[in-house]
Amino acid sequence: MKQSTLPFKTRKDAPKDEVSLNARLLIQAGFIHKEMAGVYSILPLGLRVIEKIKAIVREEMESLGAAELSMSAFQEKAIWEKTGRWDDAVVDNWFKTTLKSGGELGLGITHEEPITNMLAEHVSSYKDLPVAVFQFQTKFRNELRAKSGIMRGREFLMKDLYSFSATDEEHAAFYNRAKDAYMRIFQRVGLGDITFPTYATGGIFSQFSLEFQTITDAGEDVIYLDRKSKLAINKEIMSDDISNEIGVDKATAEELKTVEVGNIFNLGTKFSEPLGLTFKDEKGDRYPVIMGSYGIGIGRLMGTIAEVFSDEKGLVWPKSVAPFEVHLIALNDAEGKVLAEAENIYQLLRTAGIEVLLDDRHVSAGAKFADADLIGIPMRIVVGSKGLADGTVEITDRHTGEVKTLAISVPDIVTHFHG
Amino acid sequence: MKQSTLPFKTRKDAPKDEVSLNARLLIQAGFIHKEMAGVYSILPLGLRVIEKIKAIVREEMESLGAAELSMSAFQEKAIWEKTGRWDDAVVDNWFKTTLKSGGELGLGITHEEPITNMLAEHVSSYKDLPVAVFQFQTKFRNELRAKSGIMRGREFLMKDLYSFSATDEEHAAFYNRAKDAYMRIFQRVGLGDITFPTYATGGIFSQFSLEFQTITDAGEDVIYLDRKSKLAINKEIMSDDISNEIGVDKATAEELKTVEVGNIFNLGTKFSEPLGLTFKDEKGDRYPVIMGSYGIGIGRLMGTIAEVFSDEKGLVWPKSVAPFEVHLIALNDAEGKVLAEAENIYQLLRTAGIEVLLDDRHVSAGAKFADADLIGIPMRIVVGSKGLADGTVEITDRHTGEVKTLAISVPDIVTHFHG
Repeated sequence: MKQSTLPFKTRKDAPKDEVSLNARLLIQAGFIHKEMAGVYSILPLGLRVIEKIKAIVREEMESLGAAELSMSAFQEKAIWEKTGRWDDAVVDNWFKTTLKSGGELGLGITHEEPITNMLAEHVSSYKDLPVAVFQFQTKFRNELRAKSGIMRGREFLMKDLYSFSATDEEHAAFYNRAKDAYMRIFQRVGLGDITFPTYATGGIFSQFSLEFQTITDAGEDVIYLDRKSKLAINKEIMSDDISNEIGVDKATAEELKTVEVGNIFNLGTKFSEPLGLTFKDEKGDRYPVIMGSYGIGIGRLMGTIAEVFSDEKGLVWPKSVAPFEVHLIALNDAEGKVLAEAENIYQLLRTAGIEVLLDDRHVSAGAKFADADLIGIPMRIVVGSKGLADGTVEITDRHTGEVKTLAISVPDIVTHFHG
Repeated sequence: MKQSTLPFKTRKDAPKDEVSLNARLLIQAGFIHKEMAGVYSILPLGLRVIEKIKAIVREEMESLGAAELSMSAFQEKAIWEKTGRWDDAVVDNWFKTTLKSGGELGLGITHEEPITNMLAEHVSSYKDLPVAVFQFQTKFRNELRAKSGIMRGREFLMKDLYSFSATDEEHAAFYNRAKDAYMRIFQRVGLGDITFPTYATGGIFSQFSLEFQTITDAGEDVIYLDRKSKLAINKEIMSDDISNEIGVDKATAEELKTVEVGNIFNLGTKFSEPLGLTFKDEKGDRYPVIMGSYGIGIGRLMGTIAEVFSDEKGLVWPKSVAPFEVHLIALNDAEGKVLAEAENIYQLLRTAGIEVLLDDRHVSAGAKFADADLIGIPMRIVVGSKGLADGTVEITDRHTGEVKTLAISVPDIVTHFHG
């Protein structure tokens, strides 16, 4: 993509009305736009990051044999009344609205009720199980406060996966595979070393839920982490009994600020019973289906990566989720020879399958370097008239700051990126 | 994909509460699920069609140099008040909701206001223009009636494109390129021969808008079509004056039922003026930006294709948007040899880059054939024990019904699909 065609620019200063680092950086660098507190639009650079994250998550979900679908935002009152979750006294973060033809609708806070209701039409026998579905869907939550940027929004993109099993053993097997898939996802987006499975409250569903907590000062949670076992306990449920049960010693565990990037709930039959999702076993006896739900906040993940991988100059994207692999910067020269050579390299890199953002704007070198640092693409290639005379370009690693001079030879440059 | 892993099944009968053919077929074949009137969830087979349509639309939008973004569903009252479109007396199909922290929000019916407001932060000079952005976003419209299945939903996926130009000439040039891109899209999804640019009411924006109307009895619109000039006029605005102005003779034109699959509005400065989206020209004088908006209903397009390409047995997808290229059917045999050979062909076709749905279920041949007809994948390959003995499979074209016998040789089968 050519930077001159990008309709959205970087800003000189971070927005004054944002307190969170992730939103300040992502707004300043032109990745997101704040519509109102807790509501953000995703701009082209940000959308490329979101799509990279989605592609990694989708691959791992498909590796579990889960099928992708897309449920509606609008929620029917009657279905949620069956599980007792329509009442604002029970669920305190609903957005509700009214049909012109009469009747109230909810905006999806999560999708356990509709997916259970839907599966009840399709599952009837143990032969139909186990089965799993997932989606990327916008969730709407009426948060009283929204000060964490895209890490806690009133409208946000979530990946939710639901599993349906006939027996506890079938459920446990899927649960364990999903847990491994989650750890692979956090590893692949660059957060693996600082993300830990954490025991947390199971709510009304079970004794514990499993959270995936990433260490960052921007987090709203506190965990006790046992580095040796790589297990943690959320402070909310920490007690001597639980510490003994899980085997995390409170005395030696580290107390850390973290953000919850994913979670897994054992739902048991809490939804299948009231919504009539049952199956017949081999003997013809009817039982409720055993369910699990598995969430990852996609926007929150982008926000967490922005918090963790940034420095005083701006964002520093891991390669796996960067909006582009290469930021190709053409410095200005009077005759336009540099831009012509840069365009040439741009086309050749693209032909080699490398994603390139070409800075072809007529602005100063200083402005181009500052923007490149702010946007945070992993590798920067600078084409200037001096290098052109020597037949070289300069390659800078955004993470390490390491600078190399390379011959202007596409095989050399491509090899540099593809190994 | 293996059909045994699909969580959603076909139904023996079409749903009784649906009057529209598209929803009846798509529900029966397991492509969508009705949540409530005008609100549908998209199941895995349907999502594959939606993604195929999106990929075609995205390619054509990118060919216009438009950048993809994703705006929020939630709409801020203050922005819409500036254009006078917040008032329910002016716009009668809003869904509105309330923040716990106080204040009313709208759910996006369209996105002219927020995109204009956003661009005002980024556009300041004629050098920043022309520019265009697009998105695939869910729209929410509080329709009093919703009886056309996914062709008129209360919640639906739309592609919307917005253009921003400095001069009328710049706008006209983009408008014409966008019109051509629209016709390419309808051609590529199989509707090109029955879709016509149609003059329609310009609303508050300009004298005319341009609609793209597809001939189908399921349509809610009526057009007068001049087959020679391939131009049409929406009945809503037909008069002797307009018929003369556009050059469509009402006497010889055909009166046809159609569905509006796309539209283009010349917005002029109706949004840029109240929302302060201006630019400075070369002399330093400030002017409001000239805008256009360009919509395609993605769900409606799937519904229209389902209406147009279907017969008494079910759906008949054009190859370009089919959920899979090949439906590979393994007939049952006692020893499992047929399924083993089918799995072999399945893997080899996939390796060759062909998308295959393998019917590996333990159901009767009749049930498999009926489901294949209902689902409507363009090519069916049947592997049975009789053919296996001869070393052949049977290939059936869903559209023409033509049947061929082919040697079980992957080169032969691949050549059959890839030309």
